[in-house]
Amino acid sequence: MTTQSIIIKKQRGKELAQDEINYLINGFISNSIPDYQMAAFLMTVYFQGMTYQETYHLTKAMLDSGEKIDTSVISGFKADKHSTGGVGDKVSLVLAPLVAAAGVIVPMISGRGLGHSGGTLDKLESIPGFKTKLSAKECIKQLENIGVAMIGQSDDIVPADKKIYALRDSTSTVRSVPLITASILSKKLAEEIDALVIDLKVGKGAFFKDQAYAYKLADSLIDISQRFGLQTSVLFTAMDQPIGNAIGNWVEVKESIDTLRGNGPEDLLEVTLALGSEMLMKAKLEKSISEAKDRLKNILASGAAYDKFTEIVKHQGGKLKYIEKPELYDESLHQHIVKSERSGFIDDINSRQIGLLAMELGAGRKTLADRIDHKAGIILKKKMGESVERNESVATVYTDLEISEAEIFDRISNAFNITPSSPPLTNPILGYATKDGISRWSD
Amino acid sequence: MTTQSIIIKKQRGKELAQDEINYLINGFISNSIPDYQMAAFLMTVYFQGMTYQETYHLTKAMLDSGEKIDTSVISGFKADKHSTGGVGDKVSLVLAPLVAAAGVIVPMISGRGLGHSGGTLDKLESIPGFKTKLSAKECIKQLENIGVAMIGQSDDIVPADKKIYALRDSTSTVRSVPLITASILSKKLAEEIDALVIDLKVGKGAFFKDQAYAYKLADSLIDISQRFGLQTSVLFTAMDQPIGNAIGNWVEVKESIDTLRGNGPEDLLEVTLALGSEMLMKAKLEKSISEAKDRLKNILASGAAYDKFTEIVKHQGGKLKYIEKPELYDESLHQHIVKSERSGFIDDINSRQIGLLAMELGAGRKTLADRIDHKAGIILKKKMGESVERNESVATVYTDLEISEAEIFDRISNAFNITPSSPPLTNPILGYATKDGISRWSD
Repeated sequence: MTTQSIIIKKQRGKELAQDEINYLINGFISNSIPDYQMAAFLMTVYFQGMTYQETYHLTKAMLDSGEKIDTSVISGFKADKHSTGGVGDKVSLVLAPLVAAAGVIVPMISGRGLGHSGGTLDKLESIPGFKTKLSAKECIKQLENIGVAMIGQSDDIVPADKKIYALRDSTSTVRSVPLITASILSKKLAEEIDALVIDLKVGKGAFFKDQAYAYKLADSLIDISQRFGLQTSVLFTAMDQPIGNAIGNWVEVKESIDTLRGNGPEDLLEVTLALGSEMLMKAKLEKSISEAKDRLKNILASGAAYDKFTEIVKHQGGKLKYIEKPELYDESLHQHIVKSERSGFIDDINSRQIGLLAMELGAGRKTLADRIDHKAGIILKKKMGESVERNESVATVYTDLEISEAEIFDRISNAFNITPSSPPLTNPILGYATKDGISRWSD
Repeated sequence: MTTQSIIIKKQRGKELAQDEINYLINGFISNSIPDYQMAAFLMTVYFQGMTYQETYHLTKAMLDSGEKIDTSVISGFKADKHSTGGVGDKVSLVLAPLVAAAGVIVPMISGRGLGHSGGTLDKLESIPGFKTKLSAKECIKQLENIGVAMIGQSDDIVPADKKIYALRDSTSTVRSVPLITASILSKKLAEEIDALVIDLKVGKGAFFKDQAYAYKLADSLIDISQRFGLQTSVLFTAMDQPIGNAIGNWVEVKESIDTLRGNGPEDLLEVTLALGSEMLMKAKLEKSISEAKDRLKNILASGAAYDKFTEIVKHQGGKLKYIEKPELYDESLHQHIVKSERSGFIDDINSRQIGLLAMELGAGRKTLADRIDHKAGIILKKKMGESVERNESVATVYTDLEISEAEIFDRISNAFNITPSSPPLTNPILGYATKDGISRWSD
């Protein structure tokens, strides 16, 4: 067996055997297969695809490349959520404590932001003192105590994914259904959870612009999950505009606190309840999606979800006073209010442009080595479908950097599209996929 | 411009611009683009192909990566030959002096053998003292003196091809029409020749097994050549069996000397005359292929081609006494005569198996670092279409290595296929392509 012969087999569209896939992954991890051969293999997969059987073997080989978090010692139903990434996406911050408050064990491993999209870890770390780096032992202990932990991926968990992902990023092989499937699932399987819900963003501002591709990916994720005994559902959500009104780190934590206190933006709540109710259904805590949603709404209203969030913050070293009194947080040196030049209706908010601006304000990273200014960010005063008057403010921008008023005005104005007539209302939830098939979302 | 954006453009099947191709080649040569990104790009080209315009830009970028041999100082028509590689392929050794004796200037750059196929440089170096490493200045001087030089590729000529070829070999991206075209032509264009003939081997023993692919490659080679003002013709020749009877290094030089003395095997002579007559036509030394062939036959018969070969040997430091009296050459420690177990007709001689055996006898290299035993090799006593009696010898094997009689017998026997009835006669020359199209060879 040689790397070349395996590449040739895939070039010819033949199905690779388990030992061939293991040979590649193990060889790459142990550095006996160089980067350039793995890059050639990944590009071959990009063009030729993989059968579900091959994708299963790939996921397994990647999963087996590292350690697992042995959550089997904890009784109870364990579930997690994955998002394919968006702008203003603070769903995890609300969902994890909410679902944990309902009785689901949530061992949540999140990532960092890069480019225009943010990361849950960066948002959590904007809470002074908050530690996202827990050992497997600390994580298990916290799950036993409060049923939820929100941590980062350690070097021991699926090292193959870390190494392969970096290569895919620099060789334009990210967009591949089997490679995305193996990357997402290997990490989630390392948590040894019972169920997974995936928030698959679709649309202009998302990585997946077309629905057909999103459907293919969902089918692959659900099928491969089943082979591992993991119950996975996929929710297709719109990335036509940022989620909620806040884009940044601390501003998103603040918006999450508001939501946990029953005062959050509509779309954020919609997506959170849809994902959360599915998790409750999988855990057999409710019999229907609508009953599960009602239960989650009650938990929010009771303050139990907010309390769970404060427990997470406390257990992971975060200073509670900032959660209780967000106004104590430092303010940015500069605050720019952007006003509309004309009146009309908001027809479109370009997520990508908003995300890139937030990054440039200091809220994100161009490269993984960049430092983040946790205070920096954007608050949208208007969302899609809303009316706006001339000179009414559409956004407030927070930054410590010296950026001209004119540039900020141009960037925000370009991201907003304003039309004279009221656009149709849109639902952020587009559809839904389980092992039984794909359907439009209805509730 | 980034490497990723160029890869994505090619993934989408779009045509790359000249500056994008230059960016990749120059970046790769200057090490600002790493191996793994170039590997990803090459695999993308493997799947998506390139237009002729892109292939032209690629060839130009590779050509411009190094020095040229400035043959413009030499008056006269300059032509060279390229072979896609075969077993027993000593055509260059006969063709270069033959065509030079007819008045064509031949600045021939050849390569080394690897795996089952041999290389002209290794064969020449089996002549004691023969130097294949000449400086550009020495090469020009020799071309002025005797009209022909047979040398290896220096590090200064098309360094991009050296670096890219090594990567293609290890990433299974050799089989790509645009990449093969750019690799062959960039090196030949560095010789600043007026015409090129290409011996494109087709069939079981060749790299190109199917005719359709060979036709596509020929069309690309001819089209791109024309864009550089280089007249190129392609001859399709059969690789159903080794060329001639000798496979190795010194044994092939000896067979070439025999051929230059008018006593060579039929198929070797056929291929040499076909390529040579085309070179004479391009140089406008004759008006028809048949007249050109007659002229070359006369040159062989007159001894002028043999004399030209001795001039090459003398100028490049080789000891003439071995050319004049090949029997002075050292003999291998072991000589095995392989006899047929049954009588019949030779239906097939597996070139690849014969080539691999020759390599294992010491005549070739598994890796480029291996040393060659110039004496080692195989002499076929029978060729396709010939009859054989039981116990009649079919081959003699020369080696210094201790290899069992049984193994050698098995290997040779497996390579020969013997049938009871006489197979149809085959012509080693299958077809012919010029800028005017592709036709079957007829003369």
